[in-house]
Amino acid sequence: MKHLAVRFGEQLREIRKSRGISQDKLALIADIDRSYVGRIERGEVNITLEKVYDLAEALECNVTELLPIF
Amino acid sequence: MKHLAVRFGEQLREIRKSRGISQDKLALIADIDRSYVGRIERGEVNITLEKVYDLAEALECNVTELLPIF
Repeated sequence: MKHLAVRFGEQLREIRKSRGISQDKLALIADIDRSYVGRIERGEVNITLEKVYDLAEALECNVTELLPIF
Repeated sequence: MKHLAVRFGEQLREIRKSRGISQDKLALIADIDRSYVGRIERGEVNITLEKVYDLAEALECNVTELLPIF
Protein backbone atom coordinates (compact mmCIF):
# COMPACT_ATOMS: atom_id res chain seq x y z
CA MET A 1 0.00 0.00 0.00
CA LYS A 2 1.46 3.27 -1.09
CA HIS A 3 1.70 5.96 1.54
CA LEU A 4 -1.29 8.24 1.96
CA ALA A 5 0.60 11.44 1.13
CA VAL A 6 1.92 9.97 -2.12
CA ARG A 7 -1.49 8.74 -3.19
CA PHE A 8 -3.09 12.05 -2.25
CA GLY A 9 -0.48 13.95 -4.25
CA GLU A 10 -1.09 11.79 -7.30
CA GLN A 11 -4.83 12.37 -7.18
CA LEU A 12 -4.37 16.08 -6.65
CA ARG A 13 -2.07 16.30 -9.69
CA GLU A 14 -4.47 14.27 -11.82
CA ILE A 15 -7.47 16.45 -10.97
CA ARG A 16 -5.43 19.65 -11.35
CA LYS A 17 -4.23 18.58 -14.81
CA SER A 18 -7.72 17.44 -15.84
CA ARG A 19 -8.80 21.02 -15.25
CA GLY A 20 -5.85 22.44 -17.21
CA ILE A 21 -4.58 24.34 -14.20
CA SER A 22 -0.86 24.84 -13.56
CA GLN A 23 0.74 24.37 -10.15
CA ASP A 24 1.35 28.12 -10.12
CA LYS A 25 -2.28 28.91 -10.77
CA LEU A 26 -3.52 26.39 -8.20
CA ALA A 27 -1.15 27.87 -5.64
CA LEU A 28 -2.51 31.32 -6.40
CA ILE A 29 -6.19 30.30 -6.22
CA ALA A 30 -5.78 28.22 -3.07
CA ASP A 31 -3.48 30.78 -1.45
CA ILE A 32 -0.80 28.16 -0.88
CA ASP A 33 2.90 28.67 -1.51
CA ARG A 34 3.88 27.50 -5.02
CA SER A 35 6.69 25.25 -3.77
CA TYR A 36 4.35 23.77 -1.18
CA VAL A 37 1.92 22.68 -3.92
CA GLY A 38 4.82 20.87 -5.58
CA ARG A 39 5.73 19.16 -2.32
CA ILE A 40 2.11 18.11 -1.77
CA GLU A 41 1.94 16.57 -5.24
CA ARG A 42 5.19 14.69 -4.63
CA GLY A 43 3.77 13.29 -1.40
CA GLU A 44 6.34 14.99 0.77
CA VAL A 45 3.86 16.74 3.01
CA ASN A 46 1.70 15.60 5.91
CA ILE A 47 -1.14 17.82 4.76
CA THR A 48 -3.77 19.23 7.09
CA LEU A 49 -7.47 18.64 6.54
CA GLU A 50 -7.95 22.38 6.13
CA LYS A 51 -5.54 22.46 3.18
CA VAL A 52 -7.40 19.56 1.59
CA TYR A 53 -10.59 21.63 1.72
CA ASP A 54 -8.77 24.69 0.36
CA LEU A 55 -7.46 22.66 -2.58
CA ALA A 56 -10.86 21.10 -3.29
CA GLU A 57 -12.45 24.54 -3.31
CA ALA A 58 -9.74 25.89 -5.61
CA LEU A 59 -10.21 22.96 -8.00
CA GLU A 60 -13.98 23.17 -7.70
CA CYS A 61 -14.18 19.50 -6.85
CA ASN A 62 -15.59 17.48 -3.99
CA VAL A 63 -13.17 16.86 -1.13
CA THR A 64 -13.83 13.15 -1.46
CA GLU A 65 -12.53 13.17 -5.04
CA LEU A 66 -9.11 14.04 -3.68
CA LEU A 67 -9.05 11.32 -1.05
CA PRO A 68 -7.37 7.97 -1.71
CA ILE A 69 -9.37 4.84 -0.90
CA PHE A 70 -7.44 2.07 0.77
CA MET B 1 -20.57 28.43 8.39
CA LYS B 2 -19.01 26.75 11.38
CA HIS B 3 -15.28 26.19 11.26
CA LEU B 4 -14.07 22.95 9.70
CA ALA B 5 -12.30 21.73 12.86
CA VAL B 6 -15.44 22.21 14.95
CA ARG B 7 -17.65 20.44 12.44
CA PHE B 8 -15.14 17.62 12.08
CA GLY B 9 -14.95 17.21 15.86
CA GLU B 10 -18.72 17.03 16.13
CA GLN B 11 -18.96 14.33 13.49
CA LEU B 12 -16.12 12.38 15.06
CA ARG B 13 -17.84 12.48 18.46
CA GLU B 14 -21.17 11.44 16.95
CA ILE B 15 -19.71 8.43 15.14
CA ARG B 16 -17.59 7.46 18.14
CA LYS B 17 -20.63 7.53 20.44
CA SER B 18 -22.78 5.66 17.92
CA ARG B 19 -20.26 2.84 18.24
CA GLY B 20 -20.30 2.98 22.04
CA ILE B 21 -16.58 3.76 22.17
CA SER B 22 -15.11 6.05 24.84
CA GLN B 23 -12.54 8.74 24.05
CA ASP B 24 -10.03 6.66 26.00
CA LYS B 25 -10.68 3.57 23.94
CA LEU B 26 -10.59 5.49 20.66
CA ALA B 27 -7.29 7.04 21.70
CA LEU B 28 -5.92 3.59 22.45
CA ILE B 29 -7.11 2.00 19.19
CA ALA B 30 -6.01 4.91 17.00
CA ASP B 31 -2.74 5.34 18.90
CA ILE B 32 -3.47 8.98 19.56
CA ASP B 33 -2.95 10.73 22.87
CA ARG B 34 -6.14 10.73 24.99
CA SER B 35 -6.12 14.49 25.54
CA TYR B 36 -5.53 15.03 21.82
CA VAL B 37 -8.72 13.12 20.98
CA GLY B 38 -10.60 15.48 23.30
CA ARG B 39 -9.06 18.48 21.60
CA ILE B 40 -9.97 17.11 18.17
CA GLU B 41 -13.60 16.63 19.24
CA ARG B 42 -13.73 20.18 20.60
CA GLY B 43 -12.44 21.49 17.28
CA GLU B 44 -9.26 22.88 18.76
CA VAL B 45 -6.92 21.04 16.43
CA ASN B 46 -5.87 21.61 12.83
CA ILE B 47 -5.86 17.88 12.19
CA THR B 48 -3.71 16.21 9.56
CA LEU B 49 -5.17 14.04 6.84
CA GLU B 50 -3.20 11.09 8.19
CA LYS B 51 -4.91 11.38 11.58
CA VAL B 52 -8.30 11.48 9.85
CA TYR B 53 -7.47 8.15 8.22
CA ASP B 54 -6.21 6.74 11.54
CA LEU B 55 -9.46 7.71 13.24
CA ALA B 56 -11.62 6.29 10.45
CA GLU B 57 -9.73 3.02 10.64
CA ALA B 58 -10.10 2.91 14.43
CA LEU B 59 -13.85 3.58 14.15
CA GLU B 60 -14.19 1.17 11.23
CA CYS B 61 -15.92 3.80 9.18
CA ASN B 62 -15.30 5.38 5.82
CA VAL B 63 -13.10 8.50 5.86
CA THR B 64 -15.83 10.38 4.05
CA GLU B 65 -18.28 9.76 6.91
CA LEU B 66 -16.06 11.92 9.12
CA LEU B 67 -15.81 14.80 6.68
CA PRO B 68 -18.12 17.81 6.93
CA ILE B 69 -19.86 18.93 3.76
CA PHE B 70 -20.04 22.68 3.20
